Amino acid sequence: MEVDSEQYFSSYEDLDIHKLMLEDEPRTLAYKNAILNNKQYFKDKVVMDVGCGTGILSIFCAQAGAKKVFAVEASNLANLAKEIVKENNFENVIEVIHSRVEDVELPNYMKVDAIVSEWMGFYLLHEGMLDSVLYARDRFLKDGGEIFPESATIYIAPCSVPSMYNQWDNVHGVSMKSFSKELRVSKGSKPEILTIKPEDLLGTEVALCWINLREDESHDLNSYSIEHVVGASKNGFYQGLCLWFECNFPELPNGTGDSRTVLDTSPQSPATHWKQTVIVLPDQLEVEEGEPIAFQLEMTRADATSRRYNLLMTMLDPETIEHPLPCSCHMTTCILAKTFMKQQAEHAIAQKKEEDTSVLVDEEINDDDEDDN
Amino acid sequence: MEVDSEQYFSSYEDLDIHKLMLEDEPRTLAYKNAILNNKQYFKDKVVMDVGCGTGILSIFCAQAGAKKVFAVEASNLANLAKEIVKENNFENVIEVIHSRVEDVELPNYMKVDAIVSEWMGFYLLHEGMLDSVLYARDRFLKDGGEIFPESATIYIAPCSVPSMYNQWDNVHGVSMKSFSKELRVSKGSKPEILTIKPEDLLGTEVALCWINLREDESHDLNSYSIEHVVGASKNGFYQGLCLWFECNFPELPNGTGDSRTVLDTSPQSPATHWKQTVIVLPDQLEVEEGEPIAFQLEMTRADATSRRYNLLMTMLDPETIEHPLPCSCHMTTCILAKTFMKQQAEHAIAQKKEEDTSVLVDEEINDDDEDDN
Repeated sequence: MEVDSEQYFSSYEDLDIHKLMLEDEPRTLAYKNAILNNKQYFKDKVVMDVGCGTGILSIFCAQAGAKKVFAVEASNLANLAKEIVKENNFENVIEVIHSRVEDVELPNYMKVDAIVSEWMGFYLLHEGMLDSVLYARDRFLKDGGEIFPESATIYIAPCSVPSMYNQWDNVHGVSMKSFSKELRVSKGSKPEILTIKPEDLLGTEVALCWINLREDESHDLNSYSIEHVVGASKNGFYQGLCLWFECNFPELPNGTGDSRTVLDTSPQSPATHWKQTVIVLPDQLEVEEGEPIAFQLEMTRADATSRRYNLLMTMLDPETIEHPLPCSCHMTTCILAKTFMKQQAEHAIAQKKEEDTSVLVDEEINDDDEDDN
Repeated sequence: MEVDSEQYFSSYEDLDIHKLMLEDEPRTLAYKNAILNNKQYFKDKVVMDVGCGTGILSIFCAQAGAKKVFAVEASNLANLAKEIVKENNFENVIEVIHSRVEDVELPNYMKVDAIVSEWMGFYLLHEGMLDSVLYARDRFLKDGGEIFPESATIYIAPCSVPSMYNQWDNVHGVSMKSFSKELRVSKGSKPEILTIKPEDLLGTEVALCWINLREDESHDLNSYSIEHVVGASKNGFYQGLCLWFECNFPELPNGTGDSRTVLDTSPQSPATHWKQTVIVLPDQLEVEEGEPIAFQLEMTRADATSRRYNLLMTMLDPETIEHPLPCSCHMTTCILAKTFMKQQAEHAIAQKKEEDTSVLVDEEINDDDEDDN
């Protein structure tokens, strides 16, 4: 069933969700670092926070020196955000606007220098509010303005899911395979939000999509699809497809951080409240290292205006689909192609070295010439 | 709103709940130990498992040597339990009965030697099914039969609740006190299920009730109430009342465990899926070590046949209620009473020692006498 707008905003008033998000350190710290490591950028800027919730991102912006922050929140949480802004003595900088961003009118058709927003849902897009951020960008962001984050990527990799399989083979001396089978059947209709350990990944990830928040339009988000083959990275049991996302924040001149801020929700990174999303296979497949795992994944909006997506995974026959170049699988054509590409690369490197050496010789000669002068 | 019987049984079909319970090691291991450390008792016994769920407790009984187990399950999970029983090759021992226990008829008005059941809900009684266990006892248990567990106690202690208070004073440099206040207001209408650290307890626990599964009747479970004073065990912030429970399993002759099996869900014990239950105070009280904390707690069924309870906590004036004897608080009367009781005890011990010494002397004399012989 589709959640209509009204429900969406009332569910976001559930303070427990905000408790969970505020307690999510990698999430909150990514925004804090992206903003407070760029004080020189934020100084005297006008910012809009789309879906400000409790207002914490707006407060980070004010702490970083923004002269004005429009904190837009559609739910009744806006009232609480006002209290929190006051509690932090930023009521002269932050203006909480209790409205959908689509209905906001800024004074004198004002434009903002930057947009900050934490709009991400499970597997990035599920019940997220990226459409509203893109709307705000088109309507309120100055040309060349910054968006925090400015891009996002969804990754997919095959994995084992012990909590849906092996864990149930022996539960304190009792075999519970019928239970785990039933559990998997019950998960068939929706993806599972759970934590996958790095050692349960069974192959290199591939990007399903890269979203550029500066340029993408709402309709670009309607559907993403990939057909892919990956060689199993070790012997194991292929039990599901693991999805996660990464958000990149702008890298600005005079930032004080060591590097670009990235919010990474991969199995290798510290756990976030998004965990990972797993499409659990009803039956496992035993795979050997190098064995090709082929699948198609389609992610499509439930309907044109929906915040919900349908995920459709199809297992493919590795013999019948095109493999990437190079491919990590052990099929003869891929090994041959990989060997050929490696040889070509080595040949190119050798040639390059030869050229470099001759250049070096030339330079040395030049140097000698200079010394002679 | 009251959950009617039909809803109750359909919600228990949610496999995720059973996943959570099976993954709860202290819970599952307590039953396993209570049963499998008493193989000599279970050998050739007839057992009833009330609300068998996935059937794991019935399988423990069969593994322990029971000759027959009636595994009663009202929900459709009974079908899955049958599969699991078969998977473990106990279909000749365990008979899964898809029925409410109230509707069960055993062949030839048979009675059982023992009842096992995992009936406990949050803070023991919330949406639990103890009434059904007592019904099964009255109708199916032989005189002198055993019940696993055979007793249960609910404890209460004052505590700090950092996740509802202090944690929000500084969230990565932002003051979020308005948020935590709102959070506490939202928790006012129902107790919170969360984990309390041992160091967050602010005083010695007191038992709200002790339930004897061999003797208590359903109407005994209608209401429990306590009025209590406890001295704060240290300086701190009194922010809530923490509830937890403990279940005791029968201690049987020839058991192979080191001691009686206890399932303890206190803050000091390994975490279970029941966690602890906390009644969060809307405002905290700073207390000094020894300061009396007085409260009344009433736990009453929502209505006569309900599986739900209402909790009513009232903060009392320590000056106006009777303190326990001895009392850990620092009020003059309690210190005097405690000092007096201590003196009396010391006096009694001294007298006892004197008597013991004379006995010892007598014995020594006797020994001497013996040596002389």
